[in-house]
Amino acid sequence: MPNAPRYNGGSIMATDATPSFADRLDAAIRAKGNPCLIGLDFHLKHLPGFVAEELRAAETPEGTRGVVSGWFRMVIESVAPLVPIVKPQVSLVEGLTWVGAQVLVDVVDAAHEAGLLLVADAKRSDIASSAQGYAEAFLGREGTQRFARGYNADAVTANPMMGRDTLEPFVSACDARGRGVFVLVKTSNPGSTETQDALRADGTPAYEGFAKMVADLGAARVGTSGYSSVGAVVGATFPQQAERLRDLMPHAFILAPGYGAQGATAADVARCFHPGGRGAIVNASRSITSALGKDVPTPEAYRAMVRENTLRMIDDITSALR
Amino acid sequence: MPNAPRYNGGSIMATDATPSFADRLDAAIRAKGNPCLIGLDFHLKHLPGFVAEELRAAETPEGTRGVVSGWFRMVIESVAPLVPIVKPQVSLVEGLTWVGAQVLVDVVDAAHEAGLLLVADAKRSDIASSAQGYAEAFLGREGTQRFARGYNADAVTANPMMGRDTLEPFVSACDARGRGVFVLVKTSNPGSTETQDALRADGTPAYEGFAKMVADLGAARVGTSGYSSVGAVVGATFPQQAERLRDLMPHAFILAPGYGAQGATAADVARCFHPGGRGAIVNASRSITSALGKDVPTPEAYRAMVRENTLRMIDDITSALR
Repeated sequence: MPNAPRYNGGSIMATDATPSFADRLDAAIRAKGNPCLIGLDFHLKHLPGFVAEELRAAETPEGTRGVVSGWFRMVIESVAPLVPIVKPQVSLVEGLTWVGAQVLVDVVDAAHEAGLLLVADAKRSDIASSAQGYAEAFLGREGTQRFARGYNADAVTANPMMGRDTLEPFVSACDARGRGVFVLVKTSNPGSTETQDALRADGTPAYEGFAKMVADLGAARVGTSGYSSVGAVVGATFPQQAERLRDLMPHAFILAPGYGAQGATAADVARCFHPGGRGAIVNASRSITSALGKDVPTPEAYRAMVRENTLRMIDDITSALR
Repeated sequence: MPNAPRYNGGSIMATDATPSFADRLDAAIRAKGNPCLIGLDFHLKHLPGFVAEELRAAETPEGTRGVVSGWFRMVIESVAPLVPIVKPQVSLVEGLTWVGAQVLVDVVDAAHEAGLLLVADAKRSDIASSAQGYAEAFLGREGTQRFARGYNADAVTANPMMGRDTLEPFVSACDARGRGVFVLVKTSNPGSTETQDALRADGTPAYEGFAKMVADLGAARVGTSGYSSVGAVVGATFPQQAERLRDLMPHAFILAPGYGAQGATAADVARCFHPGGRGAIVNASRSITSALGKDVPTPEAYRAMVRENTLRMIDDITSALR
């Protein structure tokens, strides 16, 4: 890794010669003994009843921030001893405008305090000068006050539809700050077939074009782990495509959504991995944080439920990878 | 328009039987006599010197919000008598996290107070349950306080790469609230060629697939103007493609970036229009708001410059459409 920056625990000042995001992620997976990623999806209708009640009672921006950030922190603290990384869904806090933005700052800080890596699921895209804005917003920028330093995530998801030039600002930010980007290659939703599986003139599907961009951009950025900080999102709901994409992007970390509520099994997910359970992370969100719906009476019971669901996922995934 | 909602000036409560976004936009273009869209790009390096100085001196979140929102308001008030619609670039305020979110709320309120329509250039995408979050965040949702009602833009840009099912929540929000969505079909940047012009098995380029999605989604939503509220982004930097796309999406409003700083001429832009100068809006950002760089001594001089640049653009575009 030429000029790879030092990671120094949430500060944004980069220095020379320390682990890239991919190397940090690989090490965190080995330390925790599993590649599970807990998705933090703030769905109003899936909140435990006691949080929903607190939220209804909150009458000020500060009160709302406290309740919502409190829910995220409860989940983060419950899973922190167990998994390497968490993934807040940015869309679900944006409806709260500036309070949602404060919550996202709180979530990143809470994850880092708990020793977790964090990927902001923002799926951003724009022409280069504007993509630069998103890269700085999510992966960090200079600023004397916390609000001005961006969200300071370890990685962000990005949409490649606008072209390779629109991904480059994200990749540059990764180089400068030891951060990562996960590029959408084949998404987990049913409708991805129309746009991403469309056959091209050479007989290959469109997603192979996105995979080539990921492989090309990552080729010069392979760390000591053997992986690059230019990763890919590949839905585990399409296991055949996942197996092909694993081969086409040998150095890319794969972020695999679709396990759990969306229907992919641990065996499906296993197709995204290299032997030894390396090179991928598996997301589950609702099946971890709202498996019992609203009927969780207390914070203690909720924390226990989140922990049990996470342990069950870890067992299921690590068994399939053995 | 079956069940088109009433637009009631920035409030988010929808009622029956009033103009769709496309009809409101068409009327606003006729009222102002031109289809010019002023892009509001908060680039630190392109701010007038006196604003940059105020920003350096601002030491609190409140102070920063005041300076940044003040710059946006200055531009909005300068162009409000002249053009129908403005377009803030969301990426360029996100680096200020919650202060950026407060600024975006201020910008939408300022545009509506000035009688302008506003499209939030956010280029969002996600699977349906998360896309719903973005649709509510940008196009409005229920809430007792301003922060909880989303940004309340009249329209938002969306990225179709993830598939038709991921656009549907945006379209539903348009139906429910008289709002609009502009779907990326062929973007103005050079790199769009690799992903969007890729030939498919049937010999047509990928952007025609995105155009078909726009045409299909809009077909049942054509208002009295003849246009639907499912519009398309088509870069004026690719005039041949623009002409073809104009034909493929006969009822779509086209949002055409690329004029001015990106190099497209008024003659290029004209390919996006129907006869009579209808069915499209043309964006210019930096060529309006920072044509003299930092060397504008006072707010009065800056307002005059923005006004003159806008008048010059209007003259150039309307001449080419005659």
